[in-house]
Amino acid sequence: MSTIAENEWPRQITVLGVGLLGGSVALSLKRARPKIRIHGLARNAAKGKYLMDNGLVDFSTGTVGEACQNSDVVVVASPVDRIAELVVSAAEHSPDHCLITDVGSTKQQIVAGVGSDSGVSRKFVPAHPIAGSEKSGPEHATSSLFDGKRVVLTPAENTPPEQLQKAHAFWQLTGGQTCEMTPSEHDTHLAAISHMPHLVAALVAKITPTEALPLAGSGWRDITRVAAGDPTLWAAICSENREAIENELKKTADELERLRQLMRDANDADLHRWLAEAKEIKIHSA
Amino acid sequence: MSTIAENEWPRQITVLGVGLLGGSVALSLKRARPKIRIHGLARNAAKGKYLMDNGLVDFSTGTVGEACQNSDVVVVASPVDRIAELVVSAAEHSPDHCLITDVGSTKQQIVAGVGSDSGVSRKFVPAHPIAGSEKSGPEHATSSLFDGKRVVLTPAENTPPEQLQKAHAFWQLTGGQTCEMTPSEHDTHLAAISHMPHLVAALVAKITPTEALPLAGSGWRDITRVAAGDPTLWAAICSENREAIENELKKTADELERLRQLMRDANDADLHRWLAEAKEIKIHSA
Repeated sequence: MSTIAENEWPRQITVLGVGLLGGSVALSLKRARPKIRIHGLARNAAKGKYLMDNGLVDFSTGTVGEACQNSDVVVVASPVDRIAELVVSAAEHSPDHCLITDVGSTKQQIVAGVGSDSGVSRKFVPAHPIAGSEKSGPEHATSSLFDGKRVVLTPAENTPPEQLQKAHAFWQLTGGQTCEMTPSEHDTHLAAISHMPHLVAALVAKITPTEALPLAGSGWRDITRVAAGDPTLWAAICSENREAIENELKKTADELERLRQLMRDANDADLHRWLAEAKEIKIHSA
Repeated sequence: MSTIAENEWPRQITVLGVGLLGGSVALSLKRARPKIRIHGLARNAAKGKYLMDNGLVDFSTGTVGEACQNSDVVVVASPVDRIAELVVSAAEHSPDHCLITDVGSTKQQIVAGVGSDSGVSRKFVPAHPIAGSEKSGPEHATSSLFDGKRVVLTPAENTPPEQLQKAHAFWQLTGGQTCEMTPSEHDTHLAAISHMPHLVAALVAKITPTEALPLAGSGWRDITRVAAGDPTLWAAICSENREAIENELKKTADELERLRQLMRDANDADLHRWLAEAKEIKIHSA
């Protein structure tokens, strides 16, 4: 960053995995840096052509080495269970000054998978932009997906300050608001605020009787919206953050048992208090 | 209906309980019948003045008798636990030809509470418009709340055909799409598609740790939206439809135990199938 003007950085970035998130990173960077050059990794020529024809990338290739050559930043935006290997590969094929970051919804397993090799950990600043949709694929990518959204960075103790500073600058260019925490804090919080709620929403959809569906109102539709998400992505998240999610599901089961007891006791005052407490938390979150 | 032109009916309606739903009935009827006269029941003069100043009603009173006098239709839009008594009182104070209907989210207890007195049951056609919001109060009422929304009518075997026909006509004037089922079918379906999901959404909000709230994304916000609903209204719904809701909460607990077992087994293929089944139901509902 020292040799080029701040408003010229990054001149070239690489997106490994140009789906909803990777595509939105590309579009938001083009918005902030109109002259930027964007390389994308595509698993076949047809997908690569689609990405170029639709202005998501300027250059598409099937090999990580070619994709990462000369890039200032590499963003790994694959499903979580492939992120670590792509980070290691990107570190090998990118210039010394390159920042590598990712979009994974889990962090501890990725950090563990990347390992402590200094050549990799010197370049990599893990990130999780809290943005997304039940939709997936580059056709849903938008330049505004990250605007005003929280982006959690989970640097290691030995992350070079300059790389961490670049990671903040990069994610702010997407429109995001960066913050820092440890991978473990991240995974615990996300299990509670995202992963468990996702599974509960899917559960509600799963046990809804077909006969009742025509009576679905806006409540059911909103509660179950995320259940339309990609099962492959979510099975991978569950696998990567298993322990924290299991803890949250236990809390869910315990609270459900308390609720059932309130119903069995026909204790309307206590049920009212229970609902009021839930409302309190909901309202304070707004 | 026989003595007046169809497009002049109803000439006057009464709304007992002018909140979000009752106010929206009033506004939608004014949209369909600009010359209509609307009477409202308000618990005090200040509320009555608010309703008149804001064009929700043309006349406001604190007594059911005065409110129902000369009305063609009386809509009872109070919390569910007060509906039955208001229906009985409205039957007593309204003209012979009057249709009485309601907006209650539960039906069996209301029908039981109204009883089998022929003077009442001849006038009353229970209804539940599947429309609403986590917001409450007349300030959120809109003329379009019922547009395209399902309105479930639960007539009794001895409901006079002319009254049932009027109930269809009335709810269609609000913009709703009417259908018929038994009170028991209604309550079973609604426990599954509305009441249990509401409680589960509140549960997710209730157990969310404060520290995780800053990381809430659109998923958590949608899943928990209804948790901001009025605890008094929902405690009453739970009390009125206790048995059906208890059944649904048992199904929820059983499915949650299955999910926890999938997580404990680290059986990713089965977890993927579980998520895919949830997605299937969600997508088919759209």
